[in-house]
Amino acid sequence: MAVARIVSDEEASAEALAVFNEIRASRGTDYVNNFWRALAHDPAQLKATWERIRHVMGPGALDPLVKELIYIAVSTANGCGYCVHSHTSAARAKGLTPEIHNELLSIIALASQTNALATALGVPVDAVFEAQQQTQDPQR
Amino acid sequence: MAVARIVSDEEASAEALAVFNEIRASRGTDYVNNFWRALAHDPAQLKATWERIRHVMGPGALDPLVKELIYIAVSTANGCGYCVHSHTSAARAKGLTPEIHNELLSIIALASQTNALATALGVPVDAVFEAQQQTQDPQR
Amino acid sequence: MAVARIVSDEEASAEALAVFNEIRASRGTDYVNNFWRALAHDPAQLKATWERIRHVMGPGALDPLVKELIYIAVSTANGCGYCVHSHTSAARAKGLTPEIHNELLSIIALASQTNALATALGVPVDAVFEAQQQTQDPQR
Amino acid sequence: MAVARIVSDEEASAEALAVFNEIRASRGTDYVNNFWRALAHDPAQLKATWERIRHVMGPGALDPLVKELIYIAVSTANGCGYCVHSHTSAARAKGLTPEIHNELLSIIALASQTNALATALGVPVDAVFEAQQQTQDPQR
Amino acid sequence: MAVARIVSDEEASAEALAVFNEIRASRGTDYVNNFWRALAHDPAQLKATWERIRHVMGPGALDPLVKELIYIAVSTANGCGYCVHSHTSAARAKGLTPEIHNELLSIIALASQTNALATALGVPVDAVFEAQQQTQDPQR
Amino acid sequence: MAVARIVSDEEASAEALAVFNEIRASRGTDYVNNFWRALAHDPAQLKATWERIRHVMGPGALDPLVKELIYIAVSTANGCGYCVHSHTSAARAKGLTPEIHNELLSIIALASQTNALATALGVPVDAVFEAQQQTQDPQR
Repeated sequence: MAVARIVSDEEASAEALAVFNEIRASRGTDYVNNFWRALAHDPAQLKATWERIRHVMGPGALDPLVKELIYIAVSTANGCGYCVHSHTSAARAKGLTPEIHNELLSIIALASQTNALATALGVPVDAVFEAQQQTQDPQR
Repeated sequence: MAVARIVSDEEASAEALAVFNEIRASRGTDYVNNFWRALAHDPAQLKATWERIRHVMGPGALDPLVKELIYIAVSTANGCGYCVHSHTSAARAKGLTPEIHNELLSIIALASQTNALATALGVPVDAVFEAQQQTQDPQR
Repeated sequence: MAVARIVSDEEASAEALAVFNEIRASRGTDYVNNFWRALAHDPAQLKATWERIRHVMGPGALDPLVKELIYIAVSTANGCGYCVHSHTSAARAKGLTPEIHNELLSIIALASQTNALATALGVPVDAVFEAQQQTQDPQR
Repeated sequence: MAVARIVSDEEASAEALAVFNEIRASRGTDYVNNFWRALAHDPAQLKATWERIRHVMGPGALDPLVKELIYIAVSTANGCGYCVHSHTSAARAKGLTPEIHNELLSIIALASQTNALATALGVPVDAVFEAQQQTQDPQR
Repeated sequence: MAVARIVSDEEASAEALAVFNEIRASRGTDYVNNFWRALAHDPAQLKATWERIRHVMGPGALDPLVKELIYIAVSTANGCGYCVHSHTSAARAKGLTPEIHNELLSIIALASQTNALATALGVPVDAVFEAQQQTQDPQR
Repeated sequence: MAVARIVSDEEASAEALAVFNEIRASRGTDYVNNFWRALAHDPAQLKATWERIRHVMGPGALDPLVKELIYIAVSTANGCGYCVHSHTSAARAKGLTPEIHNELLSIIALASQTNALATALGVPVDAVFEAQQQTQDPQR
């Protein structure tokens, strides 16, 4: 299914095509996946999203594979089938082993289960988990 | 708020109290947080959940801190305020630095954003992301 | 917290007050809970919602307690703390025992877990689960 | 996929067919989309849903196109692929331009991102955002 | 779509095949659905999930059909298409009639609607809905 | 509740304080709400989020009030209580009337209801709602 046409290279605006080419260069493959092609109807949003993803998923305190695991976890909980597929694929390219995949799935399953229990029981947050807060003067 | 009373040590059944004591021993603290106390109305579920969490979050292919980051990611996407608080606290006990927390938040924020875009655009899954499937004979 | 003021009897419009009084008569209590009082800013929506809830939750093929269990299940998965509280309370008034509550929670927890696994694995729907479909002629 | 058969005109009950015909007349097209045909297994629910949608989405304070934009936003956040498709189509029939679609998507993406950040940070609601509340006497 | 290959009997490990055979014996059919076959990449998780589902969905205080209705309700709210299909099918095998299915759908629809209203209005939980809480001493 | 401390002006880094001051200037008020103060632990994320929100919610094809309505709709469906409060407040500053608020709530409630029905019925997307797609050559 698709709400918007998947934009081919031929149909892409110059600005969108430039982003496609950055994606290609950055990933070392000619293939540009459907997410970017669907976003290409709005070249500015395409460019902003690509730049944000490259920045956030790029080098930092966390390992690139760990970043993909977190991405898959969020995508699963949000029920985004497309994103689960594309980021599991990305994780494989970054070293995801079956053993790590299995562990990821068991954490996602466990968290989903305890999230539901905590909500169904309306468990109040323990005072020890709260950050010590400043009272903020509403006039300030 | 609370749907069910937070069970004190005095009110807990022997089976529930045994789990409380395992939690204490395992964590090296006397404090048992509200989630476990609310679950204590069902000692069997309490015990099964605690054993599952100790197994899944215990030693494995992934670092203990990374496991907590994944837990926080799922809890955020599922909108479980309690779990976000308790697992951010657990992550801090396992070495979460402000730098890693910031990176975690930026990945969660980014994934939430692209999840929404992929859903709103109805992006079809690329064939290259699909596992090669067996056709299953319904009689088999 | 509250986005809109909780409407007291004195502040309620005549149409809203009439619904409050129907709620009282129907439940045999003078207490009108905050949900209805917050909805009272829009008497038409208040009336439509109350009539729908009375119709759907009223006598039918399913037991009134079972209907409340389903309501709690949906409210938990949707993360609506208010609704979990109000419908667990309603379920208690309709015969919810601790044993049934425990069983309900374990089903909700299990379903949340397998929902996450099915999504994270992108499991394709088995042909045997599909309703036999008519092809629909777009001109028809 | 489909959980329930898509009901054709020939299979529809008289009450369901009457709703199909109202839909046709109201939209000026012979085509009745799958949502209504799947709902036709329960003619009373079909009728109630159609009447509610016609009432809520009909003339009011908000522009018909704006109403569809809100519908798409909710459907996206709820992960309902069908509804995203059908209401984007409805929005196009009511004047959705590519420019407005792009703007809608960027708001949905932004809100999803800040929703996640606020939840992951457990941000407490500012007092200035609260409606001034009445204390309600539980006996009242 | 599928993130992981659907594991056939031939490909399954001995431990996974043993679970497949338990599923067959328990259900009195040779057919093992895709969920279990996708989980078979992790035989330990497969076994734990199957044992949990057999325990939770087995004999207890609630009727087996009612348990499936609750499962469907959670799966719908979590947007898990696969689970909605498989558990509606399971419910049919346990006596789901069209009348009960219609009633289930109307409760799910109603709860979704009032969940959204309560959240959009930020309705505060009534004191009468709260369990009476113990204050917990953080040192305890 | 709060996972991270709400950062006061005195505690804020120079970069965070500069964003606080931009927010003040842009809104013509001295008050900086908790969301921004909680984000201030990561000045780069604070700055990027503020700039994005100012860009997306700024002048464009849609009316500023309509943009806030869409924001509220997404926040409600995502269950973000904080965001519902802050954006309903923002909407009021941009002209939200009780009449428009009522209409917004009725659309959100209706969409939530039909989203659930479409998911519970597994309604297949009508061919007429699909964008005409290009087949993408996986080698391209």
